[in-house]
Amino acid sequence: MPKSGTGLADWTVGFDADDTLWHNERFFRMTQERFADLLSDHADGPALMERLHAAERRNLGRYGFGIKGFTLSMIETAVEVTEGRVDGRVVGEILAAGREMLAHPIELLPHAREAVEAVAGRARVVLVTKGDLLDQERKLAQSGLGDLFDSVEIVSDKTPATYARIFPGDGARGVMVGNSLRSDVLPAIEAGGWGLYVPHDLTWAYESADEPEAHPRYRRLGSLAEIGAVMDDLAAGSAIRSGH
Amino acid sequence: MPKSGTGLADWTVGFDADDTLWHNERFFRMTQERFADLLSDHADGPALMERLHAAERRNLGRYGFGIKGFTLSMIETAVEVTEGRVDGRVVGEILAAGREMLAHPIELLPHAREAVEAVAGRARVVLVTKGDLLDQERKLAQSGLGDLFDSVEIVSDKTPATYARIFPGDGARGVMVGNSLRSDVLPAIEAGGWGLYVPHDLTWAYESADEPEAHPRYRRLGSLAEIGAVMDDLAAGSAIRSGH
Repeated sequence: MPKSGTGLADWTVGFDADDTLWHNERFFRMTQERFADLLSDHADGPALMERLHAAERRNLGRYGFGIKGFTLSMIETAVEVTEGRVDGRVVGEILAAGREMLAHPIELLPHAREAVEAVAGRARVVLVTKGDLLDQERKLAQSGLGDLFDSVEIVSDKTPATYARIFPGDGARGVMVGNSLRSDVLPAIEAGGWGLYVPHDLTWAYESADEPEAHPRYRRLGSLAEIGAVMDDLAAGSAIRSGH
Repeated sequence: MPKSGTGLADWTVGFDADDTLWHNERFFRMTQERFADLLSDHADGPALMERLHAAERRNLGRYGFGIKGFTLSMIETAVEVTEGRVDGRVVGEILAAGREMLAHPIELLPHAREAVEAVAGRARVVLVTKGDLLDQERKLAQSGLGDLFDSVEIVSDKTPATYARIFPGDGARGVMVGNSLRSDVLPAIEAGGWGLYVPHDLTWAYESADEPEAHPRYRRLGSLAEIGAVMDDLAAGSAIRSGH
């Protein structure tokens, strides 16, 4: 993709990490299946998943996002559904599953490198991600994309205040790119910036929300490959507006 | 403490949080005692603590520092020492103990507010802490000290590179204040800055190291109340040196 080389110098582009630049949710799904197998004598799959999701939501304010909290919620659910009769070896298996998630290799999603390279050096580029600090640092290092980012923000939650802090000025030249309407798109728009939605076929139910289809600062992309062109459009539109 | 009002404008003073500004280790000790009680049928106290500390060290590279990782290490140890026969209700009790740690109220250590106020506004003041992101944010908010800091750095580990990034220039006008020789004092000195050691009567064995007594950029303080005076000394010494 050719770089226009102009028009983005005062823009900030934020990229989400998990399931925007690299695979993540599928490791949670695989672990959930393993968890369901381990407890199949005590609860049927759908009921167990409902209990697990309830525990995750209940614990979000304590544990935040990430694999350690997810592992603790699985163990809590195992104790609950067995009424304390869970086998200690099953608890050991859940711990092992959590440790394996923390070691899973990073696999970039299609066009991930190309997308970040399309804006790196032209705009200020920031990785904005939730989850466990050490785990996200490991994944960024393994991704090979670390040198492309001007800044890395590992945050406990993604709110309008998060983006207001990261975006320059009133936010109008701030863009967030991600697969979560709830965490990437809506709060970025609320902070005065743009939300670029790149759907992923696996997205945690917690992250879902209605698309703000009519909003002038919302775009839904077919893939990350479109980022460079979209940013040229945004910069051109902004240039026209500021010429008024 | 009177403020001299001069000499610190180009300095950065980092403060550690846990067991420097507020109590923390005692909650770990209380939880360890509860853990030992829960498993008293399976292991005697000292042997159990040895297994727990071994698990904590083994898991540091995966879990990092913080209460969630500590809780997971307790559960792992409980499975290990019982050879998988741990009662599910005991696992539930360990989970509850971890959740209680995440909710414990913040209690400032003596002179904590006075120490931060002695440098806030004169130097750049940064909170530098390890642990779980959300938990450290909660504690800072509860401490009432948040507004005094120019910046908050919640990091996965404290290395010389951490301080080289936080301190200005070559580090010579950077100071780290903390109760851990291993995490606060030694790496700050290695980064070219000053390490001010404020001993706490409870410090996790992991954080211990030999005092660098003879090092010209090391100071051991009797209490946080000395910070303002020490900073005046450092600024005066630096002024003399830069006058050569």
